[in-house]
Amino acid sequence: MSAPVIVVPLGGIGEIAEGARIGELIAAAATGGGEEIGDRDVVVVSQKAVSKAEGRVRDLAAVAPSPRARELAAALDKDPRLVELILGETRRVVRAERGVLIVETASGLVCANAGIDASNVPDAGRVALLPADPDASARRIRSELRAATGTAPGVVVADSFGRPWRVGQVDVAIGSAGILALDDWRGRRDRGGRELAATAIAIADEVAAAADLVRDKASGTPAALVRGLGRHVTAEDGPGAAALLRAEADDLFR
Amino acid sequence: MSAPVIVVPLGGIGEIAEGARIGELIAAAATGGGEEIGDRDVVVVSQKAVSKAEGRVRDLAAVAPSPRARELAAALDKDPRLVELILGETRRVVRAERGVLIVETASGLVCANAGIDASNVPDAGRVALLPADPDASARRIRSELRAATGTAPGVVVADSFGRPWRVGQVDVAIGSAGILALDDWRGRRDRGGRELAATAIAIADEVAAAADLVRDKASGTPAALVRGLGRHVTAEDGPGAAALLRAEADDLFR
Repeated sequence: MSAPVIVVPLGGIGEIAEGARIGELIAAAATGGGEEIGDRDVVVVSQKAVSKAEGRVRDLAAVAPSPRARELAAALDKDPRLVELILGETRRVVRAERGVLIVETASGLVCANAGIDASNVPDAGRVALLPADPDASARRIRSELRAATGTAPGVVVADSFGRPWRVGQVDVAIGSAGILALDDWRGRRDRGGRELAATAIAIADEVAAAADLVRDKASGTPAALVRGLGRHVTAEDGPGAAALLRAEADDLFR
Repeated sequence: MSAPVIVVPLGGIGEIAEGARIGELIAAAATGGGEEIGDRDVVVVSQKAVSKAEGRVRDLAAVAPSPRARELAAALDKDPRLVELILGETRRVVRAERGVLIVETASGLVCANAGIDASNVPDAGRVALLPADPDASARRIRSELRAATGTAPGVVVADSFGRPWRVGQVDVAIGSAGILALDDWRGRRDRGGRELAATAIAIADEVAAAADLVRDKASGTPAALVRGLGRHVTAEDGPGAAALLRAEADDLFR
């Protein structure tokens, strides 16, 4: 029987300014909450916090929509300036109908509105884009955590995504460093020696989902500490959450 | 800041026989592990355990495949007897190509092979179907837990599902009772008074994912106890995980 997994919210971080070193803020929040971050822990950070620190916030008033953005916005009943920002982050439009714009971002994520939204962004009229390279964000936060604490926990950058076929959003890992994003069971056997049907578990996504359970989206809890997953934490930063992006050719659902 | 969430594996339950009262077995496993199940806890049970208790195990040798099953099996390079069982659980075939058969089950779940597989089923040549009505399974387990412990925790029946666009499987809630499966934030506001983009969180799916982190698929840990989510536990059994099934008409991805 494996050990318990404990998810601790890390609050009291306050509004995050552009240029903030998220790793340092999280280390301070952990200390303030009486927690010590260890090498076998995983730190989960909300995308919104990372985007703010990276200056990925845009003022809609400063956006000049292209004719294509205007056309799409009219068809979808969206703000053309928002659509312009979405298209700027987009590698490929997956769906554009019934008010919904689902795209594949430049970093390979498939999500509504390229992950752009206004919630928890201070100042009306401003929206946050996703980090340009969320795995690089996770690596940088890990390195800041190492500098601040002397330990190198796994890091997951999480965002809420909708899903086909199911109602509601769940948090998934858009970036990660130092955690085995995918636990591959192919070739392993069950208790009876039969090959397992669950061939690969998206650990980083499950960690993101678990962390979301302690976050209150209205209260500003931008991070959580997850304990008990040391077996999935790696010394190397590794390939990150990019390992969870399904190649278009392999995906029956596109 | 909300409280920590703690996920405790409940092992030592052993092989589950047809007719077993899962709620009683879980109550005994909790006691054996020094845990006391409370009204504000959530118990997560693996689909496989529930299917075995409900006698939803089939012997492939006893299945006579129909012509349609034979044809589909040949096209997909699958066992025609397995395909016959899948079609028997199917309301609608969603995809049948490149060796993958994705269907909508009679209970409304969209998943590969109607959720049928052989892993962790004792006796070669036998496979487990999903519970016929996973929300009813969750209600029954809750009632068994109430009888055994005098408390009524939330109950989630979880299974590993693949996802479009992302690699790997995550556990989702195929059934639930006494837990708010969907936490609806529509109309609520962020710290700055702006409407939240995350409109509804699939809590039961996130709980299922969190519980999977303590389960070792090869070791027989069919259940987990999740603490710290009392705010989502309800006295009534409620609508169950059926609340997480997206109506076909509302789903841009079908």
